[in-house]
Amino acid sequence: MTTPADLYASHRELLERAIAATAAREYWSAFPESPSKSVYGEDAAPAGERAFTGLLGKQFPVDVPGAVGTVSTERSPYGIELGVSYPKADPLALVAAARATVASWRAVGPEGRAGVAAEILRRINTRIFEMAHAVQHTSGQAFVMAFQAGGAHAQDRALEAIAYALAATTRMPDHSSWSKPQRGGEPLSMAKTGTVVGRGVALVIGCNTFPTWNSYPGLFASLVTGNPVIVKPHPGAVLPLAITVQVCREVLAEAGLHPDIVTLAAEEPGDGIAATLATHPDVRIVDFTGSSEFGDWLEANARQAVVYTEKAGLNTVVLDSTADYRGLLRNLAFSLSLYSGQMCTTPQNLLIPRDGIETDAGRRTPEEFGADLATALDKLLGDPKRAAGTLGAIVNDGVLARLTEAAGSPGVVHPSAAVTDEQFPGATIRTPVVLRLDAADEKTYTREWFGPVSFLITTDSTEHSLRVFTETVRAHGALTALVHSTSPQVLAAAREAALDAGVHLSENLTGGVFVNQTAAFSDLHGTGANPAATASLTDDYFVCGRFFTLQSRHHVAPVAAS
Amino acid sequence: MTTPADLYASHRELLERAIAATAAREYWSAFPESPSKSVYGEDAAPAGERAFTGLLGKQFPVDVPGAVGTVSTERSPYGIELGVSYPKADPLALVAAARATVASWRAVGPEGRAGVAAEILRRINTRIFEMAHAVQHTSGQAFVMAFQAGGAHAQDRALEAIAYALAATTRMPDHSSWSKPQRGGEPLSMAKTGTVVGRGVALVIGCNTFPTWNSYPGLFASLVTGNPVIVKPHPGAVLPLAITVQVCREVLAEAGLHPDIVTLAAEEPGDGIAATLATHPDVRIVDFTGSSEFGDWLEANARQAVVYTEKAGLNTVVLDSTADYRGLLRNLAFSLSLYSGQMCTTPQNLLIPRDGIETDAGRRTPEEFGADLATALDKLLGDPKRAAGTLGAIVNDGVLARLTEAAGSPGVVHPSAAVTDEQFPGATIRTPVVLRLDAADEKTYTREWFGPVSFLITTDSTEHSLRVFTETVRAHGALTALVHSTSPQVLAAAREAALDAGVHLSENLTGGVFVNQTAAFSDLHGTGANPAATASLTDDYFVCGRFFTLQSRHHVAPVAAS
Repeated sequence: MTTPADLYASHRELLERAIAATAAREYWSAFPESPSKSVYGEDAAPAGERAFTGLLGKQFPVDVPGAVGTVSTERSPYGIELGVSYPKADPLALVAAARATVASWRAVGPEGRAGVAAEILRRINTRIFEMAHAVQHTSGQAFVMAFQAGGAHAQDRALEAIAYALAATTRMPDHSSWSKPQRGGEPLSMAKTGTVVGRGVALVIGCNTFPTWNSYPGLFASLVTGNPVIVKPHPGAVLPLAITVQVCREVLAEAGLHPDIVTLAAEEPGDGIAATLATHPDVRIVDFTGSSEFGDWLEANARQAVVYTEKAGLNTVVLDSTADYRGLLRNLAFSLSLYSGQMCTTPQNLLIPRDGIETDAGRRTPEEFGADLATALDKLLGDPKRAAGTLGAIVNDGVLARLTEAAGSPGVVHPSAAVTDEQFPGATIRTPVVLRLDAADEKTYTREWFGPVSFLITTDSTEHSLRVFTETVRAHGALTALVHSTSPQVLAAAREAALDAGVHLSENLTGGVFVNQTAAFSDLHGTGANPAATASLTDDYFVCGRFFTLQSRHHVAPVAAS
Repeated sequence: MTTPADLYASHRELLERAIAATAAREYWSAFPESPSKSVYGEDAAPAGERAFTGLLGKQFPVDVPGAVGTVSTERSPYGIELGVSYPKADPLALVAAARATVASWRAVGPEGRAGVAAEILRRINTRIFEMAHAVQHTSGQAFVMAFQAGGAHAQDRALEAIAYALAATTRMPDHSSWSKPQRGGEPLSMAKTGTVVGRGVALVIGCNTFPTWNSYPGLFASLVTGNPVIVKPHPGAVLPLAITVQVCREVLAEAGLHPDIVTLAAEEPGDGIAATLATHPDVRIVDFTGSSEFGDWLEANARQAVVYTEKAGLNTVVLDSTADYRGLLRNLAFSLSLYSGQMCTTPQNLLIPRDGIETDAGRRTPEEFGADLATALDKLLGDPKRAAGTLGAIVNDGVLARLTEAAGSPGVVHPSAAVTDEQFPGATIRTPVVLRLDAADEKTYTREWFGPVSFLITTDSTEHSLRVFTETVRAHGALTALVHSTSPQVLAAAREAALDAGVHLSENLTGGVFVNQTAAFSDLHGTGANPAATASLTDDYFVCGRFFTLQSRHHVAPVAAS
């Protein structure tokens, strides 16, 4: 048997490197993002695809304590038949099973738990091609994006959470000596212990679009801080998390631990077991990614738990001026198109002054900018094959309905078009729609239009844009913000505005970095400082609420006479 | 002018030493606890007393923005006339004044804020004798205890909070470089900033018994993490916090900062401004010490804020066996008597097996143990002068009413008696009452009897005691727990039980350390893991919810062609 201590020893170097990376915040990655043969080996791609197709149309092999029947709820946005079924969860049985593991998981200690978690990650990484197919056919992400965001980047984010959790749970020593000098006598001397105790049963509620990337930080942070975790996938994206739970249970069992430390909670759409689980008295930690509506409900109702939510917001771009107009357009067009804007980080509101912006190609009015952006989108998405690789597929009918509503509204600057995919003719693929609005149309643009819908909004001035930015983000939240300006004064004002709004700011992105992407170990995702999210992925705040340090103390000889 | 940067420079060594102490958790103290002339100087004691008496019967000199009239609400438990009046707060004016300071306080940065906070502490320490009189005549603590708990130990706890806040807000660098290699091209390079942003206006709600010790951690943690703080004292203990706020404003103004970063919110009893302030949308942090009733209300209603509460609980002693029976009795008698049990850490429930405990003085039945404990109490409190110095005075009528109720109940093992103080004939001083109960009398002992009331509770066995301990503390909370046993198995079981109950454990205290005392930089106070408190004083969790780190990022040349 490979014990947790053995796993810690074998992954110790990686864990220490990861902790150092969280402190330095320079570029670092543990899991290669390139699906090339030179990295993952000659056979990795076909083997991963075989593994994926081998799962289709079958009962997925994962044990679920107290399961009652099966469910099969997924539909590929690429139109292929999935037909994978999963044990249907009984929420009370899952909570009871998780509770029964608490004391033994606590006894493993932080290092052992981090060792187990790192080994889980290593094994998930060996299944990265299989995982990429699973993410592609549940989220609608194009394959390469699914490989990166759903595979390597999700694994990096997981390792980051493990590193934060390990650092936070070992910052206080497990043993210490205390010796207080006494006037005219022996010192008072005590030996003290500090034991990390998890808060209780943890629940992770996954989303449809990023089943792994958005679930891993909470899952691994809760695990390493000593909590058993119930993983509740979105009914539309079960497979990536089922594979994850399968690997978790495998590694736990091999390390001599109870596999029920991680369990899968699959349900029929509408069963509502997320609410049942999240408000159970023994569930003490909830991680959620998804709609503002259910996120707000969880924050209001899961009162017995600490609740980490990542919801929706009004991602904003402030356009003031640029020295690289082509770069700006190219970069922005890609940001709007990537995964059809189905990212919580995709810009929605583009603010531009009424009298236009100064650029290296001359002053551009809002009308001209709209036309130029449409041209840039058409250029980016002109070739159907390349378009499909960038856009991915529309994940579900909710996104399609919003796109249809927006496409039928007045002021269309760039219409949405259907794109046909060669490989998957049944895929639902659409280009983004951009509409023109005025700053007065706040009823429209302060709603969140998750999906490929953006607004080019005319304001009185850049100062007005910054005011709209701060006020709308303070009120409705945002995960990202971008400013384009050549003026140091405007950039300084934009930074102050972003601090007031409580959102991270990207400045003058004209190259290969996009506002909707964040890098593990360097960029925080979300802030906690606006309504879009209660915490950052990942910082100390994200992990510290998941555990307590409990002390014991006793005298060691000599005890001074009193 | 001495800038915040200057203050940081002059206190840097102290701050670094303090941060090191939080990590080592060995004995360390920055502020001497001895009121002797050799430590604080020949004139310190009389000068402090003169300063205190100089405040009596007058308007306390502190500016309060928007104040409306004055209040004078304190009554000395020692029977002397205080007659100090304070500006009466207008809660909305205080919140507005605090909000107006947010951006400038944010701009000072973590080090500057820690420098300001350390300077505040240094000046409070120079007024330690004056503060001790202020704490004595509002809380009823005897002078030496007021000097220590209300003076030096409170200052150590404040420095500990400053150290945690400074460490947590500087763990992520304020500037970093990110450079991602690109296949066949220049790396993608970005410069990134990280800015600490406070959560918003902070509110500290003080208590009657430990106005400084319990308020300082929240006050200083909020300040250093970038939040303006409104200090709302208990109407019965305003003076110690008025002095504190006065010093804060003085130091802030001298450093060129807005004094409204710290304000005083004095009220008439029953005005209820704590509730008004705590639920104001701009108040984003609440620290509270006091009753479970109002603490629970705050947790349920101050939804826009993070709420740190320290409430009440069932502090428990599990008696199994001892090798030092005299030491046990002496130590326990002192713990029950110190400040008349008016500590959130005083033991209330003493659990003893029906067939007694094994001791070095032979087996002692519950009856015998009760008689021996009564004798130990009488011995400790036999001399009125020494008794007064240990007991202090009864803080208010609520405590007196509970004592009277308990004293009239059946099963009295040690009756409460009045003690006369030579120096303050008007003081209300009482010895503790101990009652015998059975494990079945849970209706009585699962209530919290804050004050000098304890129960000797007969159980079936030590195993039963540990079960009662875990179940009652899980349900009702506790701040302390103590076990006496010579059996390694029982001690191990007690540690597991304490981990399950979520409470810190002291073992076999028979010397000069008492279960109701914790040492800054070594012992945590409260855990967060049971209903008595939401957090520990002080750990990372206590400070991390008070701020966010907001990033900005921009390319640095060269930008790779995309």
